[in-house]
Formats: sequence, C-alpha cells, structure tokens
Amino acid sequence: MSGNSFGTIFKITSFGESHGPALGVVIDGVPPLLEISASDIQFELNRRKPGQSKITTQRKEGDTVQILSGIFEGKTTGTPIGLLILNEGHRSADYEEIKNILRPGHADFVYLKKYGIRDHRGGGRASGRETVARVAAGAIAKKILNQHKINILAYTLAIGDIYAKKMDYATIENNPVRCPDPQAAKLMEEKIEEVKKNQDSIGGIIEAIVHGCPAGLGDPVFDKLDAKLAHALMSIGSTKGVEFGEGFKVSKLLGSQNNDKYYIDGDKVKTFSNHTGGIAGGISTGENIILRVAIKPTASISQPQQTITTDGKQTTAEIAGRHDPCICPRAVPVVEAMIAITLVDALLQQKTIQQ
Amino acid sequence: MSGNSFGTIFKITSFGESHGPALGVVIDGVPPLLEISASDIQFELNRRKPGQSKITTQRKEGDTVQILSGIFEGKTTGTPIGLLILNEGHRSADYEEIKNILRPGHADFVYLKKYGIRDHRGGGRASGRETVARVAAGAIAKKILNQHKINILAYTLAIGDIYAKKMDYATIENNPVRCPDPQAAKLMEEKIEEVKKNQDSIGGIIEAIVHGCPAGLGDPVFDKLDAKLAHALMSIGSTKGVEFGEGFKVSKLLGSQNNDKYYIDGDKVKTFSNHTGGIAGGISTGENIILRVAIKPTASISQPQQTITTDGKQTTAEIAGRHDPCICPRAVPVVEAMIAITLVDALLQQKTIQQ
Amino acid sequence: MSGNSFGTIFKITSFGESHGPALGVVIDGVPPLLEISASDIQFELNRRKPGQSKITTQRKEGDTVQILSGIFEGKTTGTPIGLLILNEGHRSADYEEIKNILRPGHADFVYLKKYGIRDHRGGGRASGRETVARVAAGAIAKKILNQHKINILAYTLAIGDIYAKKMDYATIENNPVRCPDPQAAKLMEEKIEEVKKNQDSIGGIIEAIVHGCPAGLGDPVFDKLDAKLAHALMSIGSTKGVEFGEGFKVSKLLGSQNNDKYYIDGDKVKTFSNHTGGIAGGISTGENIILRVAIKPTASISQPQQTITTDGKQTTAEIAGRHDPCICPRAVPVVEAMIAITLVDALLQQKTIQQ
Amino acid sequence: MSGNSFGTIFKITSFGESHGPALGVVIDGVPPLLEISASDIQFELNRRKPGQSKITTQRKEGDTVQILSGIFEGKTTGTPIGLLILNEGHRSADYEEIKNILRPGHADFVYLKKYGIRDHRGGGRASGRETVARVAAGAIAKKILNQHKINILAYTLAIGDIYAKKMDYATIENNPVRCPDPQAAKLMEEKIEEVKKNQDSIGGIIEAIVHGCPAGLGDPVFDKLDAKLAHALMSIGSTKGVEFGEGFKVSKLLGSQNNDKYYIDGDKVKTFSNHTGGIAGGISTGENIILRVAIKPTASISQPQQTITTDGKQTTAEIAGRHDPCICPRAVPVVEAMIAITLVDALLQQKTIQQ
Repeated sequence: MSGNSFGTIFKITSFGESHGPALGVVIDGVPPLLEISASDIQFELNRRKPGQSKITTQRKEGDTVQILSGIFEGKTTGTPIGLLILNEGHRSADYEEIKNILRPGHADFVYLKKYGIRDHRGGGRASGRETVARVAAGAIAKKILNQHKINILAYTLAIGDIYAKKMDYATIENNPVRCPDPQAAKLMEEKIEEVKKNQDSIGGIIEAIVHGCPAGLGDPVFDKLDAKLAHALMSIGSTKGVEFGEGFKVSKLLGSQNNDKYYIDGDKVKTFSNHTGGIAGGISTGENIILRVAIKPTASISQPQQTITTDGKQTTAEIAGRHDPCICPRAVPVVEAMIAITLVDALLQQKTIQQ
Repeated sequence: MSGNSFGTIFKITSFGESHGPALGVVIDGVPPLLEISASDIQFELNRRKPGQSKITTQRKEGDTVQILSGIFEGKTTGTPIGLLILNEGHRSADYEEIKNILRPGHADFVYLKKYGIRDHRGGGRASGRETVARVAAGAIAKKILNQHKINILAYTLAIGDIYAKKMDYATIENNPVRCPDPQAAKLMEEKIEEVKKNQDSIGGIIEAIVHGCPAGLGDPVFDKLDAKLAHALMSIGSTKGVEFGEGFKVSKLLGSQNNDKYYIDGDKVKTFSNHTGGIAGGISTGENIILRVAIKPTASISQPQQTITTDGKQTTAEIAGRHDPCICPRAVPVVEAMIAITLVDALLQQKTIQQ
Repeated sequence: MSGNSFGTIFKITSFGESHGPALGVVIDGVPPLLEISASDIQFELNRRKPGQSKITTQRKEGDTVQILSGIFEGKTTGTPIGLLILNEGHRSADYEEIKNILRPGHADFVYLKKYGIRDHRGGGRASGRETVARVAAGAIAKKILNQHKINILAYTLAIGDIYAKKMDYATIENNPVRCPDPQAAKLMEEKIEEVKKNQDSIGGIIEAIVHGCPAGLGDPVFDKLDAKLAHALMSIGSTKGVEFGEGFKVSKLLGSQNNDKYYIDGDKVKTFSNHTGGIAGGISTGENIILRVAIKPTASISQPQQTITTDGKQTTAEIAGRHDPCICPRAVPVVEAMIAITLVDALLQQKTIQQ
Repeated sequence: MSGNSFGTIFKITSFGESHGPALGVVIDGVPPLLEISASDIQFELNRRKPGQSKITTQRKEGDTVQILSGIFEGKTTGTPIGLLILNEGHRSADYEEIKNILRPGHADFVYLKKYGIRDHRGGGRASGRETVARVAAGAIAKKILNQHKINILAYTLAIGDIYAKKMDYATIENNPVRCPDPQAAKLMEEKIEEVKKNQDSIGGIIEAIVHGCPAGLGDPVFDKLDAKLAHALMSIGSTKGVEFGEGFKVSKLLGSQNNDKYYIDGDKVKTFSNHTGGIAGGISTGENIILRVAIKPTASISQPQQTITTDGKQTTAEIAGRHDPCICPRAVPVVEAMIAITLVDALLQQKTIQQ
C-alpha cells in the first residue's frame, strides 16, 4: 500500500493500531517559527476523546500527546514534527473471543482479503482510533490557519430525521451532540440514548463552514480544492458521502437558480448567493466554504447479528466492548482536522505561484 | 500549482485550454504488451463528443485522437503514452465581447484571483473541454480493467425531479440522455428541451456501478478506494457531491439496518445486502461498487444575468455560444473514465503487496 | 513504471520515442505572468541540436518547438505548459537491420527484460533524443531563475586526459566542445576527430557552476539540494557519476582542510573557501554551487563489436547511423537544464516556509 | 519543506533531532506476512552504533528500537511500521557554550538561513544521528531483499591515500574500519588513530556491491535505478559524490573499451565485462551493481577553527564532545540501508508492470 501519507507540502504520515503500543503521526512541511505547545494539541484531542458524555463510548483513553521532534523552545523549527499518543486502557481480551468472526459493517473481511493477515484486536488499523492522529495533526494545521484568520466550524447537522434548524454556532460545544440548535440537540440526544438502549447505532450528517478562506486556493484540474477536501473527508472511516454548497440538490436546480451572481461591495467582488459553497472551478471564491459529510451508523452494535467465521462457518456476532451509539459528536473534530490539513496544504502551495 | 497529474502508478498528466491549439494527456505507468488502437480511444471520445443529439451542444468538434508515443506496432511498450486532440471549430470570437465579464457560475473570477491572469477564450483551462483528456486516458484504463473482467457502467439517474426507476442497463446508449429507464429517459429529454427553450440549464445525478471488481483494492488510511474515487470524481468540473452505497441516506439508518451481514455461498463470502456500496473500510469488498455524483446545471446559459466586469462595473452577461442545457449525458463517459483511472491505479498498487 | 515525471511543485512530465511522431513535455507548476516566447525555448534547443559542428552527429533534426498550452498572449497563465517537438529526418531504416541485435552499451537488453517488448528504432525511449524534452523544460526553468538572478553555466571540463586549465567562461560557446579553455578546447576537438576516425567514441567530464543561488534551498533530510541534483543529473542517460565541491577528493582530505571557515564581509557571512561546493547539510550556502558529471563514451560506435541477437545467437554489431563521437558538447545544455529544473523546484518549495 | 519521506511504494518517513526525546521512522508499503523481529532491526542498528571500537566516537547510545505498529505476532500486516529509538546519554550541555557559534563544515549557518531558527543541540536534525532511522528502515528492506536473494555488501574502499587492494569480503566485519583487505584495514586504522591524535578527521570512499539483483529494476527516464540510488546516497549527510561502475573513469575511456559485450552462457545473456556497474539505461542488467560513495572528513574536529558567531562576531570554535575521526566505518551500514530501501521500492514498482 503506502496510503498513510496525505498532502504535498503540508504532509502528514500516520501509523498505529488501536491495540498496539501507540498511535502516531509525523507532520512534515510545517513552516518554522510557529508557536505550538502540547496543550494546543491536547485541546483538540480532548474534543475527540471517548467518555465525554453518556452518549459516547465509556472507554477510558488518556489520549495524552507527546511531542517527539520538530518543536524547539516552544516554536516549530521547520523539521518534521513527530507526535505520539500511547494506547492505554484498551482491553484486548474483549476481542479475543471474536478474533475469528467477521463483524458485519467492519473491515475485518476486506483486510483479510487484501493483506492475508489482520490484527484482530479492535479493528487494528481500521479502528476509528486511528483518527486520533488526524486530530493531532489537525491541531497544528489549525494554528497555521489561525494566523491567516481562517476558521473552521463543524457540527452535527442531523441525526436520523432530526435536523438542526437554528444555527446558533456559539452553542455547539454546549451540548454533547455538538449541534448548533439547542432544541434539536436535545431531541438528538434522546434519539441516541434510545438507539443505545436498543443495542443499536444511528448515522447522521456533519456540516462544516470555513470562514475567512481567501480566494485562490486549490489546484485545478485534479487537485481542485473540493476534490482534495472530498479525498480528505472520504478517508475518514465512517464517511459515505461528501457534498459542497447545494450538494445533491443541484440535480433539481436550474442554471438561473444555481449560478451565483456578482456585485460590487465597495472594492470587493461579492455574490448575492453562495450556492456553490465557496468553491468554484475547484478554487476558493473567498465566500464561506460550506460542505456536508454523511456519517454512517457505527458498525459495532451489541445486538446479535448473523455472520460467519474466518473459516467460513455460520455464527452470530455479539460485539461486546464499549462503543459509540452515534459517532457524529466525536467525528466533528475529525472533520475539522481533515479540512484544516487540506486547507493548509492548499495555502502553502498557493505561495509557490505568488510573486 | 502542479495539480494536473492524477494517480501514483497509473499516472495521468493533462494539459491544454479549450481554445488553444490542442488538449493532451500523458499516461505513465501503463503495463507493456497491452493491445491498444486509436479506435479504442476514439470510441470513448465519440461518446463524450458534442453534437450527438439535439439536447447536447451543437458545437462541432472532431475530437480525433493522435497517439504520439508509448504504443509500438499496436502494443503498449511500458513507456509513457502521449495523446493529442487538436482543437477545431472553436469560435474564439464568441468570447471576445465577454472577455471582461465575470460569467456567473464560471471560474472566471477565481482564476483571475488565483493567477492574476486568465485565458478568457471559452474558459481556457477551466472549460469542460478539459475532460476530453480524461476520457482519452480512461479508454486506456478501461482496456486494462477489461483484461481483469472489471466493467464500469455509468448512467443518468436523475434530471431535476425525474428519476430512473427501471434499471434496464442494455438501453442506456439507446437514448440521448444515457438513462437506463426508457420511459424516464423520454421525460428527461422533454425536460431538457423545455429548459433549453427557456435559455436555461438543469442539473442531475449520475450513478455508476462497477461489476467484477475484486476484493482488496484501496490503500487505507488516506488512499482508501472511496477517498480516491471521491477525489477523482469531485475533480470533474460540474460535480458538487459524491456518495457511495446508501450515501447520504445513512444519516437516517440504524446500524442494524446498514451493516451488511455475511453468509457463505459455496466457497465464497457474500453479503445479503450491499448498503456499503462495494467498499468497506476503504477497500473493495468484491460486491458491486455503487456510487452517485451530483451534477450541477451548466453555468453557461444564454438568458441575461446580472454580473460585473473585471474592472468592477455592473453589467449583464448574455452568454452566446452553443452550450449543453444539461451536461449529464456527456458527463457519463467522463465519470466512467475517472472511475477507470482510479481503479487501475489501485489494481496496480495492489500488485505490490501480493506474494 | 511511472518514472517520467520529475519535481514536486515545478513538475515536468516527458514522453516520446526517438523514432515516433514526436517528443513532448508538460511543465506544471510554472508561476503565472512569466513572459515566455517560443524563441526562448528554441534558443536552448538549438544549443542541443545535432549537426552544430563536424564533431557532433551529422543528423538533421529541426527540433522546432510548438507551444500547445499554458501561455496566453506571451505570458504564462499558471496552467500546464505543453511543448511538442516533432521528429523529423529520422531514418528508421537504419535500424531495421539491427532490430534483433543487442547493441553493446545500449539499453536494448534491459528494456526487453523489463518490459518484454521494445521499440527498436534508434533506442526508442532510451535514446538520447529524449533529452530534447529536458532542454525545452529547462528553458522555462531558466527564465524563472533569471528573474532571481540565478545563472547556470556548464561546460566541458575534460575529454579523455585533456583538462581545461584556464577558466575563460566567456569563450565557452566559441568552440564546438564548449570548453572554457580555448587551448584545451583545440586539443579536445582534435582528440574527438581522431576518435571518430577510428570509428570509436570517448567520454568526458562536464562541470557546472551556479552563480547567484540564495542560501536556504533544499529540503533535508531526503530532498537535500545535492540529493535532488544528483537524482536529476544521474537520470541523464550518459551520466556515470556526480560529485559536488571537492567531490571524490574529499576522501583524501582532513577535516581541518575541508571545513570552510566563516568570516564577516560587511554584513554578509562568507567562507574563505568553498570546498563544499555551495551546498552544506543539503542546503545551498549562498556561495557558488559547483558540481561535476562523468559522461561515458557514446555507446553507438561503428566499429564491429561482438554481441548476440535477441534470440541468443552470436553476431557482430556494426552500428550504422550518424552518432556523436563524444556527447559532452551536446550534453552541456542538458546538464544545465536538469540543474535549472531542480533549482526552480527548490526555490518554489522554499516559498512555502517563508513568512 | 516536506523532504522527510523517501520512496514511492516502499516509503519511509523519518523524524527526530539528535538531542530531542527520540528518533523515529515510519515505513509504509511493506508487504504483509513478512517475518520481522526487533532483533532483525537491532542487529543493523548495532552495526551503526557509536562506541564499537577506539576509532569511533566514544559516545554511549543504547539505540534500542521499539516497534510501535505494523507488526502483529511477528509478522508484518501491510500497515505502516512505526519504529522509535529513544535518545539516551546525550550531553546537551556540551553544546550550550557553542550555541551561538557557526561551526565550520556544519549545517548551522544554512539551517539558520533557511528556517530562521535552529535546534543548536548537536546539530539537531542535521546531525548524523538522523541516520539511525535510515538503518532501522533499511533492516526491514533487507529482509524483503533476502527473500529475493538480493544481497548488499558495503565496505570501506579507501581512507585518505590507503586503498583496499584485496577483496576478501568475508573479513569486512572483522576489522573496525569495515575494509575487505585486512592489510589495508590495519593501515587505515593507524591512519585514523593518527588523525584523531591531531584533533583532526579524515575522509574516505565506501564501495558497495549488490549481488543477485534481477534485471529489469528502475523506471526511466527520471526514476532510473542509478538516479534513485544517487538521490538516496547523496541524501546521507557526509556524501560528496556517487559513481557507478567505472564512474568518473569513463571520462578517459573509449566506447570500444567501455561497452560491455554480450555472450550467451547456457540460456543466460551475460557480458564479458561490467564497466557499467550493473545498471544500463537506468535499469538493472542482472550483473552485480557496483557503486562508490565519497565520504567527507567529519566536520566536528576539536582543534581550534576560525569562525564567527550568529551575531557576526569573529571567534574560534573548539568543538568538544565525542566525535568520529572518520565516519566511514559507521557509514557503511547507512550506505547499505539506503541502497536496500531504494532497491525494494524499485522491486515493488516492477511488480506493477508484470503480467
């Protein structure tokens, strides 16, 4: 393979299995003289951490980041930043009894087909735990974006049939679902608890808005900004779809409705609408970038499911362990991280063509 | 930039503007001893060509491919294949009068912001004409996939509110919309004609199915097969969303509904359902790959639209020229091409880890 | 394979065989608004062209460049530049009779082993003709370097035992050997003529000096500037060695001799010596970059050589055709081109870490 | 930057400073089901370790490798292998007093110019300690090569004027210089001790031979096997030149002398000579690969050297600490590692074009 690096200039390389000694990430191409502390990274890791509320997994993971390189006396030096998060509190024993079972909705079968071997402890590399590396790298990307006054905000837009209607962004972190509509958040929380009681899980939609992204980022024709973002976001394990601006609704729109018309506001070019979601022709327009990600229901559910063993016998899987009935709340910082990583790479690449 | 290459092993590099002398593509990494003729490539180019019916643009483009390298006595040699398609019959004059106008829905503004200069003739590099290079490269990718009995089928699933309901794949190429449901196709055709009469355009959804893809393709964690496909498909100019299997519907599903359960069929591992769309954990499962692409309404419409000039004056754009009222029919072979290119790259990469 | 691209930001992709329709190169990542004309490129191609003197091959090749994309109204647009050089005046018939012969010193055998097929006409992709694409791309790289007042000068340092002793750079283009020492040039010319008369060929050393390269280029630890230059230069078909500064002589030096000591000249940091050749720790020091390339004797010689046929029979190769008795004079612009391409890429990458 | 990854399929990413908490390397693209133990890696690390004899540095570094991922129950899983080597026994205090001094022959100045900041403790990222990551990754590459019966042997060919004349490869590891000629080894050892006594250092030449490399590896025209090897080897800090086969001697050879003539040995194609060093046209020929690397004298010497401070004042550097008077003995395993890494990548890439 060799699919564990992402980015061209700002390039991350991740490693580690859910039940091995550690997860880690190397971030190369970080400009020097950027102030970064372990707590900057820890802040984001804590947002992703299990056990934040009763609607997330009750696993205990310290998720404490260690900085191994690339930062000297509080500042980046331009050399690669190595970050390490030790695995703690994992219960490999939970997985011993299902080591020969192909869990429905999981990657057990395909890893076996692809590699002829798999680390069966908790999904190994295919575990959602892998995203801890993304969030750690994303924290550094966000520091760079902050310098440029670019701000990323992701949140739960929908869980099942419940959609956020009011967009009160200030309240996102005030509820365990990370939803900007406090009333919808309440309903979502109840829904997730109900699903959990039924030993089941549920999907949702995460929306993200990027404020302050300058016009000009993205590299047509193959590395368009939306193409790179789609790549980044689809690489998150639970994603089944990505859309920008009007997204799939464009199929029902006329050109006269969908085209964003220009006007002049002082000395700025603006558009009356933002149907395109802040990216046109694969390049950022300067308006807010708006995208949505479809998140599938967690594969791990404890109710019995019909399946087979690795040696082809019929069996029933009952997945013990402590799993998220809905991964959306914890996927929000992961979505933000992947957007941040992609934007920084585009931002740094754009410097190469500027006078 | 440098965003004009795609792929790691099977790597394509494209160049050319809509109104320059030619479009071209270099395909590197093609295995040797593959039989390829110009007519293999021409066949696919003709499917994309303008003027195929009254619901596509009436522009005349010969789109004749020239093979410049990499094929010797009818076979690939392992060296890079250079393909050239001369631009013919373009009317640059059509664009002279709008050279200073920022066309709504187009990339005029962002190219100017990004590069400080733009080729205003017909969109230049941002023109849909760029996709001719993708289709040419895709034709070669399809030849390789054919050897492995992998078959890609894309078609128009929806135009506006009209959805294909019957999936009679054999009829796809029998109607100008490339829809597998002849009745829906008729309605779609009428809808497009109506829209065209109103000097407007309309969007749609293209669906694609890959039959025969073996299990094991895709390189987690960042180069998952769905992530690479999303990258490839989002890089097509008119795409606003990509989804796999249940796609955005997963937001409403429970884990117990969405998980595909395994059973044994003879010596084969199968699943009762294919909600995941043939890719799990970023790796192909061996089931059909199913995906959908949201296609926006063509930006070029001839009805007057409010906009501004490059020097900031209010004006009205009336885009002359001959444009597609709906790009879906001609985008079908482009979607197939990008899928083919992505799959071949994954297929060749998979060889590197096999015993 | 897929080894026909070079560079990360300034990225070239080359294609074409010596006896196919054309050679070509796509140059991606060129900053916009750079003034480039066909004659800028033609100037460099003419320096590489056959038939410049009686000591080079007498083949006639027009080597006229066509610009296919990326340049609009005399300026680069930031989109990929496609360049095409049609093959003319090749005599494929010259090669018909040796199509089954493995020519000593050529790549015939290895191409057959690697690909299982080869284009036998004049070496196909392995022909020195491939370097025409490098020189064309290098011409564009040089334009960018000129803006930064970086200047590359390559020349023939040695042919056989004859070494340039006086370094009168102004005279380099005044003699057919491209040697900065007019007296040595005379002797070299006579040597080459003598070798040619004997149906033989001879090797040499090309030296290059880069003036004006700023300190700071190169990306440790793997993409050090000297590592990238070595990669670039060793990829030229006739190169057998590359060295920087004192080069292989360092094996005989003491640290106290080899270390360049610093002093202050006004507000500038300078070194008393430049043993390191302008690159330390893989990063340019700001002093002149100095390197040398070992060029092997042309493989094509017309005297009879013992060899075998592709079906394993003993035979004698007498290579007709018109070949260079010494490739150094024509390799000089190729060496310059590869240095230029490498430096521009490093220069543009360096922009990504600057404040 | 982002120059800390090397390879396309077998891709390594390294991080860490000499006086930070740890050095590390991520190895991606390793085929699954390969048996690897920590002791396989430790064996190679021990060959590179300081303090092996009185002619190497007397620093104490445990250099114990930890496997963090990618290996499960003794076998590779196809996921990235993370390796960590903690830094121990470093004396940062040694560097405190020279933190503002630009050490001649070191990268202090260029790091400061490039990044505007540097980790002054022992060279930071520019320290030779960085090669520990290369050797660890190389150990894994060697395991793969062993499966293919490819064997790499590097050794000290020359120190100063003393050259190995007898090639008794079995004795290489029997002397502290790693020289295949026991008599020359003795003289080399004495020379190094003399140099050390004079508070000086000395350079040398390392030669490497690869036995058993199959024909067909390498990807023209830019990723030729010799070009990639040159890149890999020049990226080692102390390298100032690389040559293949006859190397720089080709400048004095005639084509009739240098061309390797073919003959048939049973059903095998062989050459009477191997002037080309096992690589022709950038592709391995099946003969032994032979190359040489010029190693400069260690920059760190304890005799006083004239230099300046970072704020531009004249001073004298007396570099305390424990340094290698000649780095060749310890560079031998580093050279082997970089060759191994490059060959495995070429080997895996070659699989992609095979039927």
